Amino acid sequence: MPLNIRGYAARSATAPLAPHAFERRDPRPDDVVIDILYCGVCHSDLHTARNEWHGTSYPVVPGHEIIGKVSAVGDQVSQFKVGDMVGVGCMVDSCRHCAACDQGLEQYCAELPTFTYNSKDRQDGRMTFGGYSERIVVSDKFVLHIPATLDPKSAAPLLCAGITTWSPLRHWKVGKGSKVAVVGLGGLGHMGLKFAKALGAEVTLFTRSPGKESEARRLGAGYVVLSTDPAQMQAVAGQFDFILDTVPQQHDLNPYLGTLKINGVHVLVGLVEPIEPPVHAANIIFGRRSIAGSLIGGIAETQEMLDFCAKHGISADIEMIAIQDINEAYERMLRSDVRYRFVIDIASLGRAA
Amino acid sequence: MPLNIRGYAARSATAPLAPHAFERRDPRPDDVVIDILYCGVCHSDLHTARNEWHGTSYPVVPGHEIIGKVSAVGDQVSQFKVGDMVGVGCMVDSCRHCAACDQGLEQYCAELPTFTYNSKDRQDGRMTFGGYSERIVVSDKFVLHIPATLDPKSAAPLLCAGITTWSPLRHWKVGKGSKVAVVGLGGLGHMGLKFAKALGAEVTLFTRSPGKESEARRLGAGYVVLSTDPAQMQAVAGQFDFILDTVPQQHDLNPYLGTLKINGVHVLVGLVEPIEPPVHAANIIFGRRSIAGSLIGGIAETQEMLDFCAKHGISADIEMIAIQDINEAYERMLRSDVRYRFVIDIASLGRAA
Repeated sequence: MPLNIRGYAARSATAPLAPHAFERRDPRPDDVVIDILYCGVCHSDLHTARNEWHGTSYPVVPGHEIIGKVSAVGDQVSQFKVGDMVGVGCMVDSCRHCAACDQGLEQYCAELPTFTYNSKDRQDGRMTFGGYSERIVVSDKFVLHIPATLDPKSAAPLLCAGITTWSPLRHWKVGKGSKVAVVGLGGLGHMGLKFAKALGAEVTLFTRSPGKESEARRLGAGYVVLSTDPAQMQAVAGQFDFILDTVPQQHDLNPYLGTLKINGVHVLVGLVEPIEPPVHAANIIFGRRSIAGSLIGGIAETQEMLDFCAKHGISADIEMIAIQDINEAYERMLRSDVRYRFVIDIASLGRAA
Repeated sequence: MPLNIRGYAARSATAPLAPHAFERRDPRPDDVVIDILYCGVCHSDLHTARNEWHGTSYPVVPGHEIIGKVSAVGDQVSQFKVGDMVGVGCMVDSCRHCAACDQGLEQYCAELPTFTYNSKDRQDGRMTFGGYSERIVVSDKFVLHIPATLDPKSAAPLLCAGITTWSPLRHWKVGKGSKVAVVGLGGLGHMGLKFAKALGAEVTLFTRSPGKESEARRLGAGYVVLSTDPAQMQAVAGQFDFILDTVPQQHDLNPYLGTLKINGVHVLVGLVEPIEPPVHAANIIFGRRSIAGSLIGGIAETQEMLDFCAKHGISADIEMIAIQDINEAYERMLRSDVRYRFVIDIASLGRAA
């Protein structure tokens, strides 16, 4: 007997999000049923709701920074029990047999992972619906344990903004002795600063807006460079081992490439399609530099990140909203008017819509 | 008493190369004087002669794939003696004290290396002149030993085409078990095939021209993929650890990126300014792929490559020309009408111009 669920959905690219009733599948033996408490608001939610990446299937229920409590488990589930605080991020399944999945890199699944919303379930072919809703049903392999010492509200953004910045920092071995720069101070950027600092790196924030010094320092930056000021950019030429670029719009990579050391890496985590203005090859040929990309992170790595956050007292800086405020929150997100991530209190769904 | 030298120079961006007499410095205590026997013809020579990279100072004497015999050495030179067969590549000096130089990465010298031609000597400020000439004077630290078992003629292109392809293959640890693709079958590409094969990799050639199968296989490729055929490209999706891209003109990187494995690297060695059409970030974000650049190679690494070539019987496939034929050779090079590198017999300078 499928579950009847209340949530918020976009019914077209131009419609605001509005209350929406839908069904979720009857739990399978490996499923965990989660009563959602909180859901972070990611820029991808807006891109998808408005069909900015094309391919949106309506109605779409966004949300992939999900925190909740287990309310039921299937017969085969041994790692979770009713009452556990758990999380769900951007993926709810993958092929589970390709080289990537075998390495715990489900995000790079050769057959593409099943995403938490706007994706087709691999077993029944029905569309997935995300965390702007009261309940979700997810295979246990894609459910995360939320350590007891983490505040569940501010842990929500760790499931996307957190892992998306953590994974490249770990893959490129950022640690003590690394000189790291983070481009952009938003939901992802503020996590990048916190993680790079906690991993032992010397951290710089690149920003286009003056006046962010004190905030950047509070979040872990030792230095702030105004990227619109050629003199400041020249002063950091050849300085960085690693640039974590969190800017979600097109921007010129060339000035940043010049600030990398020999063998330095500039990693994009935002789908800035396409990369324009074009990159000058000389900026990577001189210095053997790289431009790389990174997509969220694997499930085991996400658990590692959550455990690291619990140990180091790290979580996102958030602003709580009611789900009725989601459309206004999207507009504020577009103006970067949020420090640094909106989180929906799903209890607000209980109010009259 | 400076040395009077005969050579060939371009006197303007539009003038053909023509006989030119000039002076070289009186040898310093660390200098090696080399009677040039052979000089390879690199695409960079043409770019510089025609001022296509701007910044050419006329007259310019190109040539940085130089093989010759030592005719004199300064008092401080201990590693070379009169009669030794030696080589000079793209660089004749560097700052010798930056982090790059300390690591043997003189090509990435923080103050830029002194290039073999069209560059300012660090000591006397005079312009450098390249190997299209009868004699050159070079500091011993930038002179290479040519092993006795290497044919001097076909060794000339190793000094640029060779090291430019060798260095990235080694830096990215290509070896047994690697799946490597080489883009382009020219002076650099044919060396890339030979080296990747000799290093133990499984090698594929990407080419836009049908009919290169037998040549590619002779040079080390196990497979040939016609990059203009979407079906052939689709058949190698996600296959390669490493792409060595030797194409010296602008071209679309996007189709190649899709043929990389997770963590795969696409390395540019040509100044394809700028990178257009633009790269789609999704092509690197999905798969954590990288686009990197690589510039020639360091001096120690160049010696390593020459010794490897001697041990494995590797050298360039060449066509010998007289220096009087250099302008025609440039035109043929532009039409890719050379298998695979022109080498000038400098003895031809002795003939009436």
